This record gives sequence, C-alpha cells and structure tokens, in this order.
Amino acid sequence: MRMVDLILKKKAGEALSKEEIDFIITNYVNGNIPDYQMSALTMAICFQGLNDDEQFNLTKAMLESGDQLDLSSIDGICVDKHSTGGVGDKTSLVVAPIVSSCGLKIAKMSGRGLGHTGGTLDKLESIPGFNISLSTEDFFKQVKEIGIAIVGQTLNITPADKKLYALRDVTGTIENIGLIASSIMSKKLASGAHSIVIDVKVGDGAFMKTIEDAKKLASALVSIGKRFGRNIEAVLTDMDSPLGENVGNANEVIEAIETLKGHGPATFERLCKKLSCEFLLMTNYCKTEEEAYKLIDEKITSGAALNKLKEMIKWQGGDPKVIEDYSLFPQQKKEIKVLSVQDGYIKRLEALEIGVSAMLLGAGRENKEDNVDLSVGIKICKKVGDYVSKGDTLAILYANEKGIDEAYNKVLNAYHFTNDKVKANDIIIDIVK
Amino acid sequence: MRMVDLILKKKAGEALSKEEIDFIITNYVNGNIPDYQMSALTMAICFQGLNDDEQFNLTKAMLESGDQLDLSSIDGICVDKHSTGGVGDKTSLVVAPIVSSCGLKIAKMSGRGLGHTGGTLDKLESIPGFNISLSTEDFFKQVKEIGIAIVGQTLNITPADKKLYALRDVTGTIENIGLIASSIMSKKLASGAHSIVIDVKVGDGAFMKTIEDAKKLASALVSIGKRFGRNIEAVLTDMDSPLGENVGNANEVIEAIETLKGHGPATFERLCKKLSCEFLLMTNYCKTEEEAYKLIDEKITSGAALNKLKEMIKWQGGDPKVIEDYSLFPQQKKEIKVLSVQDGYIKRLEALEIGVSAMLLGAGRENKEDNVDLSVGIKICKKVGDYVSKGDTLAILYANEKGIDEAYNKVLNAYHFTNDKVKANDIIIDIVK
Repeated sequence: MRMVDLILKKKAGEALSKEEIDFIITNYVNGNIPDYQMSALTMAICFQGLNDDEQFNLTKAMLESGDQLDLSSIDGICVDKHSTGGVGDKTSLVVAPIVSSCGLKIAKMSGRGLGHTGGTLDKLESIPGFNISLSTEDFFKQVKEIGIAIVGQTLNITPADKKLYALRDVTGTIENIGLIASSIMSKKLASGAHSIVIDVKVGDGAFMKTIEDAKKLASALVSIGKRFGRNIEAVLTDMDSPLGENVGNANEVIEAIETLKGHGPATFERLCKKLSCEFLLMTNYCKTEEEAYKLIDEKITSGAALNKLKEMIKWQGGDPKVIEDYSLFPQQKKEIKVLSVQDGYIKRLEALEIGVSAMLLGAGRENKEDNVDLSVGIKICKKVGDYVSKGDTLAILYANEKGIDEAYNKVLNAYHFTNDKVKANDIIIDIVK
Repeated sequence: MRMVDLILKKKAGEALSKEEIDFIITNYVNGNIPDYQMSALTMAICFQGLNDDEQFNLTKAMLESGDQLDLSSIDGICVDKHSTGGVGDKTSLVVAPIVSSCGLKIAKMSGRGLGHTGGTLDKLESIPGFNISLSTEDFFKQVKEIGIAIVGQTLNITPADKKLYALRDVTGTIENIGLIASSIMSKKLASGAHSIVIDVKVGDGAFMKTIEDAKKLASALVSIGKRFGRNIEAVLTDMDSPLGENVGNANEVIEAIETLKGHGPATFERLCKKLSCEFLLMTNYCKTEEEAYKLIDEKITSGAALNKLKEMIKWQGGDPKVIEDYSLFPQQKKEIKVLSVQDGYIKRLEALEIGVSAMLLGAGRENKEDNVDLSVGIKICKKVGDYVSKGDTLAILYANEKGIDEAYNKVLNAYHFTNDKVKANDIIIDIVK
C-alpha cells in the first residue's frame, strides 16, 4: 500500500477501506507517513468528505492509537459531556455538579482554551489551589467517593488525533464534518463514559456557523457513538451571542456558582438545566422531562448541586471558600465600561468578536504556549433584544494592562443595532438522537 | 501574511494575488514554508484551480527562483520544443536536426525519463561517448558554430519548480492544468528561446487523457507564453498508442536516424515534419506550409538533416559512426517475440502499458535514482488498424535478464482486438496558437 495512491483515491472521491485507514493512521503516528502526505490527504477529504464507514474507521483507528480509560470499576452510571467550543461556555461547571448531585457519576477530562474559545481547565484553575493534574488512581478514587472529578488529560489519549489536529490546524483543514466528528468522538470514546451528551454550538462564535452544518456534525457524532455502542445524543445550541453574561475565567466560574445558587442568567440556566435533563432521561434515571426538571430544581434549591462543586474543589486542592467569597479569585486591576454610541435595540452581538476581545485582554491564548491571565475578561451588560440609549454601559472590560484599546473597540463593534424590537434566539435549537 | 490563511483562501475558491504567490514561492524555496503546508495548498489548487493571472504569477515566481539562460548572444532565431511526455517519443532527435539544417538555432535543455515516459537525455546517452553535461560556455559555442545542441540542465534552473514538483509527485497533486502549465512554462522560459512549440500529448500514454483536458493545458501554456512575450504554439498529438515503432533508448535513436534517412514509420515522420513546419512558419522562415514542407523534404533527401545530428554527436563527444553502423549501440542479449493468441483487427494498443513494459525491462525508471539499461526496449510490429492472425508477432522484446515475463504479459494485454476494420487516429489532433 502506498500513501500517494490512497491520496489519489480520496482525491478522486472514492471511499477508503478500514485497512487503508488503519494503514494511514498507524504509519502517520509512527512517522512512516510524512506530514506533507497527510496534509494533502486531509485537504482532499475537505473536498470529498468521509462516508459513515470511513468516519467510524477513522475514529476507531485514532481511538486505538493510545490509552483508553476503563470506568467499569466505578459503580453507577458514568456520563460525559462535550462542547464543541464557544464563547462564555462554563456549562460543564454547572451541569456536572447538578447531575452528580442527582446520583450520576462524572469522570471528566477537559481541555484548555484556544483562540476565541475558552477551556474548562483554565476556568477551574482560577480557583486558588485547584489541581487539574490528578493521578489516574486519585481520579478514580474521587469519582468513586464523591461522584465528580474534572481533570486534564494525563493518559496518552488518542495521540493520532493530537498529531493530526495540530497538522490540520496549520494546513487549513480543520473544517470538515467527518474529520471534526472523528476527532471529537475518538477523544470522547477514549474517556470511557457510556452515556454522552454533545453540546454542538452553532453560530458566529462556533466552529459550525450554520444550523445545517451543525446538524450534519451532530448526526455524524451520534452515528459514530452509536456504532461504538454508546448511549449518545447531541444538543444544538445557539452561539451567535456569547453564552451567559461573562466571558473570561474567574468571572465565568463566579457565574457558574451564581447559577448553582439559582441566580444565573436565564438563557444560561435554561441550557444547563436542559443538558442535565437530557442526562437524567437518557440514562433512565428519570422517566419524564417533568420529573427530571423537578429533581434538578430540588438539587439547586437545596444547595446539593452547589455542594457537589464545593466537594470537588476541596478534593482537588482548591479553596472551597471561593463559593462564598469571590474576592478570593484573582482580581483584575481595572474595570472599563464600554459605552454605547447610539440608541436602539440590539439585533446582534457577535460572539466571535467578544471571544477575541477577551483573548486580547489575556483571558485566552492566541497560540497554544501562551499564558492566560485568569483575572481578566468581559462582562456582557446588554444582550440581543435589549433597548439601549447612547451612553449606556454595553459591557465592562475586566482588564490589567493588556489589549484594552483594541478590546474596547472590538466589543463596541460587536454590537449591532436596529430601530425595531428584536426577539433573542432560543438557546436550544434542536436535539439529535 | 500567514501561509495557513492563503491555504484557506484558495480552499474557499478565491484567487491568490501576485504578492501572495511571490510570498509562497520565496518562502517555500528558502524553507520558511514547510512541505506540509505547500502540499495542502497544491491539493486545494487541484480542486479550485488557478486563473490566468495566478498561472502567470506562479510561472514568473518559479522562473525567477533560479538562473535563466540568455541566448541573445547567439545570432539567428533560437527555437525550442517541449513534449509533455509520452511513450516512444524521440521527436526531438528528428525535429532538432531538421530545423537546424534549415537555418534555425536549437539550444535545447532536455530531461530524463520517469515512469512510463522516456527522456531525450537517456536516449542520447545510448550513443557511445555522447556527453550531455556541457559547460554553458561550450553549449553556447556549439550552438553558435553548428546551430544545434541538446544538453542536460547544468544551471540552477527553476529550483522552486524542482522542489514543488517533487512534492506534488508524492502527494497526488500532479494533475492540475494550472500547476502543470506553470511548471512546464517556468522551465521553458528559463531556457531562453523566443519561439517555442509545445507538443501536448493526449491519450492513454499521456498525462492528459482527454482532448478536452489537453486543449485546456495547451491554452494555458500558450496564454502564459504570450504574456511573457514569447512566440508560442501548442500542437495536440495522439498518445493513445506508442509513437512510432520503437520504445526504449538505443532502438529509439536508431528509429530517429532512420527517419532522418527517410525511412521512418509514417505517423512518426508525419509528426516530425508537422512540428518542423510549425517552427518554420511561426518564425516567418517560410511563408506557406507548402514552402516549409518542400524545404524539410529537401533537407532530408539531401542528408543535410541527418548530417546535423552527426555533427551534434561529434561535437558532444559521441561516436558519429553509429549513424551508419547500428551495432555500435548497446546490444541486448535476447529478442523475444510476443505472439498473438487471437485473430482480428487491432482496435487499441495501450501506450501506458507498453511504456510500463519497457520500464520493467529496464529501459525506464520506476524511481528517479534507478539506472536505465540503454540496450533494452520494445519493437512494435503490429499497430492499430492492422489485421493479425493467431501466432503473428505483435511485438518484440529487446531484453536482458530483467522483467521479461511481466513485460511479455503486459504487452500481450496491451493489444485489443475487434472483428471490424479499424482506422487509426491521425497523429495530429489540433493546434492551439
């Protein structure tokens, strides 16, 4: 088998067999197939696509390229959640404590932010002392004892995907449904959970810009997951605007805590409850939506969900007093109000521009090796549908020294106005099962 | 400027500007742009194409990446010929002596064979003592004195194209009209001739499989050449069947000599005269086709054309006695007749299979670094349109030890029969000016 022939086959629009995909992944990981052949193949895939069998076989080959977590020693139902990445997405910090307080087990490996999208690990690290690098032994022990843990990847999970993703990133071949789905699913499957909900973000601040593309990705993810015998569904959610009212790290954790206290922004709370509800239904933990929402509300009202977050913080070395005292979080030096220069209804608030602005202030990474300033970020004061008068505060920059002017202008330009009343999108767009 | 953005631009179907193409070629040659980004770009180009401006700018950037031959010190009109590569293509060995004997100057840099296609340099080296590595000084001196020289590339001609072509070869990105046209034209333009005829081969044994594609390539080549102010045209010629009756090296040179003696195979002779005629017309050396053909026939009949070849051989260190005594060429050990296993008219003779068979016998290179056996090859005894009875000799393998069985079967299978009379294609398909 010669790689050049397989490239030509895909270029001609033919499907690659399981043997051919195994050959490609095995030899790419061990270095026999050079990057320059792999990038030619991924570009051909961007134009010709991957069919269901190819997506399944690619996922399997990447999954089997590394370690896989075996959660079978944990009693109960292990669930996992994945977001395709957005702006202001602190959903895991709320959903994981809720479903854990309901009795499900969350043994979650999360990632760091890149570009305009944030990462759960960065957010968690804004909690003083919080340790995301647990040994596998401690990770299992914690999940067995308290039913929740969120850590970084310590095992050698899907090295093929790591190598391939890094290559796709610099060769313009990220955006292809089959490649994205195989990448996401190989990692999720390696994480071992049996029941999985994927939050597929759609819109300006997401990888998937259109509902049509997002549905295709959702279908691909669910289809792959099912072929691996997993209980899986995908929820399409709106990412035209930032999620909730805070974008950054410490400020996002505070918003998550507030939501667990019952004081979260309405759309964000709706999303968290919906995802939690899906977990309770798909695992047959609850029989009806009504029952699930009732249970979720109880866990929030009683403080049980918040207490799960507190327990996790304690177990992972963080200071649980942050729950009550937000001054323990890293503090930015400046708060700069972004003032409206016009009157009108807000018809659009570009998530991408807000995400990039937060990154410019230091809350995110332009390159993988960049450091993140956990104290900075953006508070969204006015959202789509709100009426604004000239001089009103649209948003507040939580800043230190970096990027203030550029961020200010970007945030201002992220807002678009109209004279007519506007109805904001529903956060939940669709569910693919 | 970032290469990944340029890849994404081309992937989206947008045109690259002159500045962007210059950036790409400059940084690819100096190593700042890695192969894996370049191959992703070339694959995107295979799907999205290059417009006229991009082809021109790519050609220019590659042309200017290396040395260019300045032929202005040579009196008279310097012409050059290029073939896109075929099976049994010894045309330069006939056309160059003819037009040189007519008074035009040929200062030609040729290439070696690869895969199923032969190369003029390999063929010339079957002449004992023939030296293809002249210094630029000797090269110019020879052209000034006798009006003809065929050598290998000694200068650092189009290093960008060399590097890019090697990459395209292993990444499945050879076949794109724009890339092929820019590659060919950058080399031709660097060789300095003002009047150029490109022989665009079409069919089974050529890069261009269809007349439609060949016309597109021909138009691209002519369009680029004209934008550089050159006098250029492209002749589309049939390469469904091998050209002439011999495929190999020594046996092809002998066929060229026979043709200059007036005893060449009819189709091959027709092609050589047609190409020679085009040179005489495009340079205004002759006013009409009739006049041109008359002059060509005179030069052949008088032995003047053959004498030009003899002079060139002498000047380049070869033994001119080969013209009269073919036993001076390298001799193969075996002649194996390939016998027909059926009766019928030959409706197809696959050039590609014949080219590969010759390569298997040792006449060509599977890889660039392979050695060539100059004595071996294939003699085509029966051609498209011929009637054959079972047991008739279809072809003769000139062989030493290598590849005989495989070549025998391939040659046999290259012949396809029918019960109905068949008319062979005309060798000349079209001319693009």
